Amino acid sequence: MFLEKANIWKNFDLDQAISLRQWLMSSKLGLNLTLSDESYDNDNFIHYIEIYQPPKDLALSYLNNHSVQIPQYAHAIIHHGPEETIRDYLIGPLPISNETIMKNITYLNPIPLNARNTFNWTILAEYGMKLLLPLEPVFNDLFNASLVNQTILPAATGPMSYDGKWRRSWVQMRYNVAGSWLHAVDFQFYVDLSGTDPNKYHIIKIMHDSKIYHSVEEIIIAWKQGLLKRFKPDLSSWASRQIRGRQRDLDDRQGPRSVQFSGPRFRVDIKEDWVSWMGWNFYLSFERDMGLHFWDIRFKDERIIYELSPQEAMSQYSGSDPHQASTVWLDSSFGMGGSVREVILGYDCPTYSMMLNATIHELGSSVRKNAICIFERESDRPLSRHFGEQDGESGVVKGYELVVRTITTVGNYDYLFDYTFMLDGTIEIRLSASGYLQGGIWQQSQIPYGHRIHQGAVGSLHDHVINYKIDFDIVGTKNSFMQVKLETEKVDQEWMDEDWGVGAIQQRMTKNILPYESLLEWPNNMEGAYVITNQDEKNAWGHSRGYTIHPGPLCHLTNLESKRTEKNVNWAKQHLAVSRRKEEERCSSSIWNGNLPGAPPVDFYKKFFDDESIEQEDLVVWVNLGTHHIPRAEDSPNTLTNLATSYVLLSPWNYHDYDPSIDSRNSVILKNDGHWHVDEATKPGHCIPSAPEPLVYSGLESYREDGSPGQGELGNWLLGVMPGRQGG
Amino acid sequence: MFLEKANIWKNFDLDQAISLRQWLMSSKLGLNLTLSDESYDNDNFIHYIEIYQPPKDLALSYLNNHSVQIPQYAHAIIHHGPEETIRDYLIGPLPISNETIMKNITYLNPIPLNARNTFNWTILAEYGMKLLLPLEPVFNDLFNASLVNQTILPAATGPMSYDGKWRRSWVQMRYNVAGSWLHAVDFQFYVDLSGTDPNKYHIIKIMHDSKIYHSVEEIIIAWKQGLLKRFKPDLSSWASRQIRGRQRDLDDRQGPRSVQFSGPRFRVDIKEDWVSWMGWNFYLSFERDMGLHFWDIRFKDERIIYELSPQEAMSQYSGSDPHQASTVWLDSSFGMGGSVREVILGYDCPTYSMMLNATIHELGSSVRKNAICIFERESDRPLSRHFGEQDGESGVVKGYELVVRTITTVGNYDYLFDYTFMLDGTIEIRLSASGYLQGGIWQQSQIPYGHRIHQGAVGSLHDHVINYKIDFDIVGTKNSFMQVKLETEKVDQEWMDEDWGVGAIQQRMTKNILPYESLLEWPNNMEGAYVITNQDEKNAWGHSRGYTIHPGPLCHLTNLESKRTEKNVNWAKQHLAVSRRKEEERCSSSIWNGNLPGAPPVDFYKKFFDDESIEQEDLVVWVNLGTHHIPRAEDSPNTLTNLATSYVLLSPWNYHDYDPSIDSRNSVILKNDGHWHVDEATKPGHCIPSAPEPLVYSGLESYREDGSPGQGELGNWLLGVMPGRQGG
Repeated sequence: MFLEKANIWKNFDLDQAISLRQWLMSSKLGLNLTLSDESYDNDNFIHYIEIYQPPKDLALSYLNNHSVQIPQYAHAIIHHGPEETIRDYLIGPLPISNETIMKNITYLNPIPLNARNTFNWTILAEYGMKLLLPLEPVFNDLFNASLVNQTILPAATGPMSYDGKWRRSWVQMRYNVAGSWLHAVDFQFYVDLSGTDPNKYHIIKIMHDSKIYHSVEEIIIAWKQGLLKRFKPDLSSWASRQIRGRQRDLDDRQGPRSVQFSGPRFRVDIKEDWVSWMGWNFYLSFERDMGLHFWDIRFKDERIIYELSPQEAMSQYSGSDPHQASTVWLDSSFGMGGSVREVILGYDCPTYSMMLNATIHELGSSVRKNAICIFERESDRPLSRHFGEQDGESGVVKGYELVVRTITTVGNYDYLFDYTFMLDGTIEIRLSASGYLQGGIWQQSQIPYGHRIHQGAVGSLHDHVINYKIDFDIVGTKNSFMQVKLETEKVDQEWMDEDWGVGAIQQRMTKNILPYESLLEWPNNMEGAYVITNQDEKNAWGHSRGYTIHPGPLCHLTNLESKRTEKNVNWAKQHLAVSRRKEEERCSSSIWNGNLPGAPPVDFYKKFFDDESIEQEDLVVWVNLGTHHIPRAEDSPNTLTNLATSYVLLSPWNYHDYDPSIDSRNSVILKNDGHWHVDEATKPGHCIPSAPEPLVYSGLESYREDGSPGQGELGNWLLGVMPGRQGG
Repeated sequence: MFLEKANIWKNFDLDQAISLRQWLMSSKLGLNLTLSDESYDNDNFIHYIEIYQPPKDLALSYLNNHSVQIPQYAHAIIHHGPEETIRDYLIGPLPISNETIMKNITYLNPIPLNARNTFNWTILAEYGMKLLLPLEPVFNDLFNASLVNQTILPAATGPMSYDGKWRRSWVQMRYNVAGSWLHAVDFQFYVDLSGTDPNKYHIIKIMHDSKIYHSVEEIIIAWKQGLLKRFKPDLSSWASRQIRGRQRDLDDRQGPRSVQFSGPRFRVDIKEDWVSWMGWNFYLSFERDMGLHFWDIRFKDERIIYELSPQEAMSQYSGSDPHQASTVWLDSSFGMGGSVREVILGYDCPTYSMMLNATIHELGSSVRKNAICIFERESDRPLSRHFGEQDGESGVVKGYELVVRTITTVGNYDYLFDYTFMLDGTIEIRLSASGYLQGGIWQQSQIPYGHRIHQGAVGSLHDHVINYKIDFDIVGTKNSFMQVKLETEKVDQEWMDEDWGVGAIQQRMTKNILPYESLLEWPNNMEGAYVITNQDEKNAWGHSRGYTIHPGPLCHLTNLESKRTEKNVNWAKQHLAVSRRKEEERCSSSIWNGNLPGAPPVDFYKKFFDDESIEQEDLVVWVNLGTHHIPRAEDSPNTLTNLATSYVLLSPWNYHDYDPSIDSRNSVILKNDGHWHVDEATKPGHCIPSAPEPLVYSGLESYREDGSPGQGELGNWLLGVMPGRQGG
């Protein structure tokens, strides 16, 4: 219930990052690095630095033995402009000493620079404008919009490459108003941004009114001939979140609000990002690519999970227009950690939440205040209850839960990452989505690909799939994976009679320990279960102790044959998978996978699934959440989290001898001696609650690579792609 | 926002019931009725009386026209002992006058009395004891238990008949301690209870230690020879809900609790059981068979659903022993309304819930106080939110919900029926289960059918399936049913280049209006949707207005070929179904279906699905919730509602032109003028909340058929079957 060991997974603080970057930039390493915010594409610069998570065997010996200290390492991603590659380095031991060395992380190949996910913003604005400026009178005339005045803006799409040989994108033009994502106009162009010389950027083709033009000049001629189509935009605030419509009955009152009358029941070590609640405890780390990771999750002093973390979030769109039809986003490239937002207290999380900051070191450093919120809540219904006549049968255990939530806004979309811990040992992993659709231009040809959601806008069909790594340790690291199937059988029992017939069809289950690494689907009609179990450890009744993975609504990718998702999202092509844990199989994706569908640094099938035995081995389960999103008019202005949500439960399966939540003191028993009596183990607290703090929103603390103040919040998402922190 | 018309679906009050029963019992009708609590099986008596819901066309004209009054009718179920049938009568108009007549409800056949679900408790105890008493020394010796002292009790199982020709049950013996459902002993017998003469009751066979004995005498001989197996029971309180185990850290504090600082935001007309909240309003009725029904559900002044109600709840068990293997329960027979319980305020529902009573008229009358709880709560996450740079893009709408909850305890199991209304027009229908497993005796042969959960107990595999009727009226009664499928296609577009290849595989949707009444499955991997829509009514963007049915975790029955579920649960054999609405297709089941799998009064396939056209007709969607329950040790002592839960969402699908919840005043907008400012439309309330009322539990107000006081709470569940209200 109190922290015993420091957090070995926690990222560097600002001073550590500055010191590490100073070392990297020192002349003796010969890296010839430029400050990232002064760099050009053909320079060498640091994309980001971060702690390199220790190998599991070392980490376990650290956790198990008070005297063990383990060395700290960093990884650094460096862009080598002159050689047009990106490399991932391992640096250590830290702090910097004469023993500190730097080496390539070999299992990630050198990455072609054309697969990069940073932009030099100044260059892009300057050269992009050069290409488009001749179109200014066309935009003025057709769309009543101006590039120069920035009333219209370009937005690119990914993937920008297949194998790193080139870098191209279909760019959509949008009105620069609230909800610009829904304000596309009928003008798209295919642009080549290959290499490091912006003078070579060029437009390949332009699409307008379903017609192709092969140059800016060609479409200008057509415009002069009056062949182009004017568009009368609705630039009212229909895509804004401003309140619209009459107040509903009694909505001048604030709705019910949760209050901790008896104070918090969880403990957080703010320095070490360690949390304890009702027998649960775990460490947190916050990483640039995918945000919050959980480490050493224990329930009642036993480790259940060594690592729980999101791996990648993808979305693939459809449409009749090239921008939508060619979009596949892999959001780790933008940085789900880097794009985390401050929660709005009282709206995103209860007013009494405990909040932690998130620090990352990408193109400088940044501290996002109040990025992680932790709170206890009443669950939606009692966890267990019964009404019976016997003494001790009637009562209720309240279903309290601890929630750890972060919210990441990747351009248009807001992802709510929720991890919920329950009194019985269950963990829920949930992802919900809100924010703006990536809208397209409405035209008849879009009918099979979405719904019209406003005069000129279509909400385009797309899939979201999000992969999680669950490194279970069920009573140690030696675990097996059991497939349970529900079947029917014909049985003929001695006790059967001719009234019902001798021979009956009945349900049974079969259990099968999977021998090899496997790619798996959830069974139809939920007729079965998957259980991770330790065959050598039994509960009191002789059953192998285990955890089951219980699916809520979720999906894998629909489209299994797109070239834009050829090899880079193999993790998304089935519901779940189980593999043997390896240090060099840390993550099912990489931040370059998105732009390298034909040559991904991490090919999940090829790299992870090589028919290794998985009986009583250290196993990782890779589980997908996801939704098929068929946008409706009700996705405007923003998608709703009640429908756009997906979850799995990880739940004890003969892990215990009985339900451990029966120890709860937030419970009641009814006794009957002719009348009913109520026996409450803990009386409801009641007092004047502390008033909610005035609501403030902090913005970002940002720093340049040398630790001097940075530019704060990120700027626009001009190309639909994270611009990095250059300029803003 | 205020009630305009009285509730025409509400059940009779006590006076109305007494008056109706007086009329039925009057000699002029010649029914020769006996008071139910003084009746024998060969008497005539009233099982129950209830309002007969008016035909929809009349109800709609009543709702649409202020001057229309519609006649009230009752239905009565009468047991005709001498002719060994049960009949369902329609009686009206009411109040009783010279015009009042009584007639058979012809679409329900006369029911054979062997399919009845009432017992004469006195008779059963007397004659049951007569059959079993010779075994008293055997029970004393083998199980250290006594029939006479009631330390061991019999518990029967259903179905008790196939077609009504006989009435038999496999009866399990259980210790009479807390959680007796988990305390079965290795002694089961097959008993014949056919007809109305208890002298003809007889034991057909007995099972012990996996051996069959054909009479009481035979097993007594074996016992005397020392051939039987002793059982050493664990009669400690392991199956009780009493708190066990150390207190967890900080569990001496009460967890957070929801408070209405600004008072309630919903309106309830207690007299008319009418509820209004945030643009929603609806009527409630409470019925003996399945409890709470919703009528005329409107959102923002438009009717969405005419009737929403549970229809039947079934569970089918497996096992190697005859009791478990032969169990199929259809819980309407017990009365899901009749078995409703008082909610325990602060544990089952928030302390500030509004509660309504439930009145039914079965074997007398009863009023269950505080049976229906209604409350608003914060949803688990914001309903919509975004963080963006543009003015009006950043903000949150809080996801308030109105919940209507009832909890029914049918013997061992507690069903939580939840109906949740959301700000965007979504309704969630959820069923969660807690309470006790129906346990069996543990033996090796049970391995394929469950898990051992204690020394001598097995938790047996079973399916729960619960059917709901959703009579949608989307902008009127003329609706169609759309099947949406997600598919992939190969497209070759003019804009494609050789870089990605000309020709791409992409996702698309197809839409198909179903021409005829249909039985349906949810698509694999959620690749599709079902939408109920009015093809003649479009939203502003030209789409047919509709509602989609969005599945959470659920299932249909696994075992489609059991003789015990041959024709009586056809509704449970697929995920959902759509049929044309008919007055004579009111309910997908009947309270006699359970005991008549071979000759059910309601055969869902035969009666409802006759290939009628369903385009732009008045439609009913029949949706199943359900879980495959593979019990684990953690189901002891009680099943947990986090895993044992199932739901669907009914959600607008281009019904609106945009998300209506954007009108919410419980919302916040962030504005940025260099710093972030917070604009809260409604400030959080803050004051001293009212203290929770001292917790009381009321028990049942019960009345005999003449209105005199009844016996209160029901007694034991001796045969596992609702004993009715005789004796208790």
